[in-house]
Amino acid sequence: MTYTEEKLAALRTFYKDQLLGDTLPFWFPGAIDEEYGGYLLMKDHDGTLLDDDKAVWIQGRAAWLLATLYNTVEPRQEWLDGAKSGIDFLLNHCFDTDGRMFFHVTRDGKPIRKRRYFFSETFAVIALAAYAKASGSKEMADKARELFGKCIEYATIPGMLTPKFTDVRPAKGIGVPMIMINTAQQLRETIGDPRCDEWISKWIVEIERDFVKDDIRCVMEQVAPDGSIIDHFDGRTLNPGHAIEGAWFVLHEARYRNSDPKLMALGCRMLDYMWERGWDKEYGGILYFRDVDGKPVQEYWQDMKFWWPHNEVIIATLLAYIMTGDEKYATWHQQVHDYAYTHFHDKIHGEWFGYLHRDGRASVSIKGNMFKGPFHLPRQEWYCWRLLAQSTTKKTE
Amino acid sequence: MTYTEEKLAALRTFYKDQLLGDTLPFWFPGAIDEEYGGYLLMKDHDGTLLDDDKAVWIQGRAAWLLATLYNTVEPRQEWLDGAKSGIDFLLNHCFDTDGRMFFHVTRDGKPIRKRRYFFSETFAVIALAAYAKASGSKEMADKARELFGKCIEYATIPGMLTPKFTDVRPAKGIGVPMIMINTAQQLRETIGDPRCDEWISKWIVEIERDFVKDDIRCVMEQVAPDGSIIDHFDGRTLNPGHAIEGAWFVLHEARYRNSDPKLMALGCRMLDYMWERGWDKEYGGILYFRDVDGKPVQEYWQDMKFWWPHNEVIIATLLAYIMTGDEKYATWHQQVHDYAYTHFHDKIHGEWFGYLHRDGRASVSIKGNMFKGPFHLPRQEWYCWRLLAQSTTKKTE
Repeated sequence: MTYTEEKLAALRTFYKDQLLGDTLPFWFPGAIDEEYGGYLLMKDHDGTLLDDDKAVWIQGRAAWLLATLYNTVEPRQEWLDGAKSGIDFLLNHCFDTDGRMFFHVTRDGKPIRKRRYFFSETFAVIALAAYAKASGSKEMADKARELFGKCIEYATIPGMLTPKFTDVRPAKGIGVPMIMINTAQQLRETIGDPRCDEWISKWIVEIERDFVKDDIRCVMEQVAPDGSIIDHFDGRTLNPGHAIEGAWFVLHEARYRNSDPKLMALGCRMLDYMWERGWDKEYGGILYFRDVDGKPVQEYWQDMKFWWPHNEVIIATLLAYIMTGDEKYATWHQQVHDYAYTHFHDKIHGEWFGYLHRDGRASVSIKGNMFKGPFHLPRQEWYCWRLLAQSTTKKTE
Repeated sequence: MTYTEEKLAALRTFYKDQLLGDTLPFWFPGAIDEEYGGYLLMKDHDGTLLDDDKAVWIQGRAAWLLATLYNTVEPRQEWLDGAKSGIDFLLNHCFDTDGRMFFHVTRDGKPIRKRRYFFSETFAVIALAAYAKASGSKEMADKARELFGKCIEYATIPGMLTPKFTDVRPAKGIGVPMIMINTAQQLRETIGDPRCDEWISKWIVEIERDFVKDDIRCVMEQVAPDGSIIDHFDGRTLNPGHAIEGAWFVLHEARYRNSDPKLMALGCRMLDYMWERGWDKEYGGILYFRDVDGKPVQEYWQDMKFWWPHNEVIIATLLAYIMTGDEKYATWHQQVHDYAYTHFHDKIHGEWFGYLHRDGRASVSIKGNMFKGPFHLPRQEWYCWRLLAQSTTKKTE
């Protein structure tokens, strides 16, 4: 199938309306914590607050979202003020004395838990960078660049962070190069940084060389340092939605580099391989985990459908379609879009449920927790809206 | 309903036959690793080995099982030899230089991961103690007692183990007093230890004082050090099957202490409260997590049915019925027994599947992984068989 100009225009309007009229109002301005700063996000389906703790990942992501809307949609003061609340909370409460960030803090910013990886830091980089652009603050831009530098060290210097495993069976995950590519892309698109292009290229080379397996049409989630497959439960476990998120980071880079054909081909291969492995032909939707050899996965909830892989696959399929015109990507986009807005979207209170059983029943009513908040869904709606606004010829708005 | 003598005799035969004719043959002797010692247990439904790594918890539990069968069923040489294989592997490969044990090792015993809690150690204590009794080895008995002493230190001296959380919101779990009660009970019943009675009493006092909430009819999984409920996701999360495992440890202690009425009442209250909260009235079976206030649980797989809570509830309900004669426990026992042997038991290859969706469909075909192996199911069948053999008047065997 193909998407007509009318269909693309309708999708553009749909994503815009969902973002501004359904997703954002679920969270803001109500979630802004007027007393302590930051955001109160652990909400039930109807907006009831279930827990007033703060997940540092999500504090950064929410600040990024508000600053990004200010930068790219329109300069609404409430978005700038909202972003500032999160930035202040991050800077005042979420850093440990060693420069690392916490993972989980109380409402008033006391630390509950620090983890042995640095995703809190990468989300703070994109929040600081977007807020620096929105506010024009050189101080914030400096902080973003300094923290990005630390993230590069954590990602590349062995032993910087406490390891979770011994060195008997060394392994590396695709998550680090992926998150660093996206962090660098965000930094480049907001305040700019001379390191970004070179590092993005290096991380894409690493993904292609070590994680993308053309012979078996697969993107691995974890490999040995030399890229070989580790034939144990963890090494065999695939995360198709995550790999497809990586695919669109690569496609986004291809688009930035004037439709670089090599990067386009790489992003499309990653998408193709993991759609084949992740799409549930029986019930629809993206299965969470798969085994590279089709063996049983160790994780017992492996066949659940999580919200965020669907956001990533909606972006990846639309981006691949817009960039290549290949009809299969329109077909896949329509399939995953229809599945997601039918099964995840809460038509009563807005936003999406996070977790479905394989057959599409919601497993919990929660809209926000340590891992879910205003990020993947609004990012998808924002990204697809902007992509279509830049790409469709029939510009009605 | 009530169980007739005939019904109890039939159950006794059923558990014995399942243990010796269905569960044990799935694992042994095939799982014994003739090359490196220990056991190869990460098996698919048909016995195919999916991963040759070794989970230290399960190595200890399997050695305990074989030595316990030798001690209590009959002195089969293959059980003694099989136990020795696991004991040798534990002693030669599973201890770090600091005296702590690993969690996950390779087939040949190289360490992959060490965790910040000491369950590997408690399972090694019961394995060493049972093997010491079986073999008559004083050296093994000394090792069991020495390691039990270390476990008491880990359980009671703050700061012995690296904490996972900061001290901003101190919490303690019911898991530590529970596992220590059971470890001490096993030690006492095999080689004896003068510390056991006093420590068991202390841990039961702690559970009753801090975790059992009569006003709201609940057993908490985690509380503040003073026993107060922590009103956040983790603090509100209940694990009914785990609490009911605790209930039968208390009932077992009551039985050991000549049907101590106070302990009997405590065990029955724990069982009553958590049956009410954990039994799935719609589909049957024990739900994995619940929220103390009926709010949504953060864990997305919260409504799955795991095999081991069913083993614990089968033991607890039968023990409560045998000890009290209260008909409701026979009703509950029949319900959970029927649910479990209908839904978990693999009628083709024997043993049980580990993980069902709420509606009873198996989520993965795996029989063994980092957490599942020859322990909860054979322990249940062994315990119930022996309990009925000691309790029923019509002794046909």
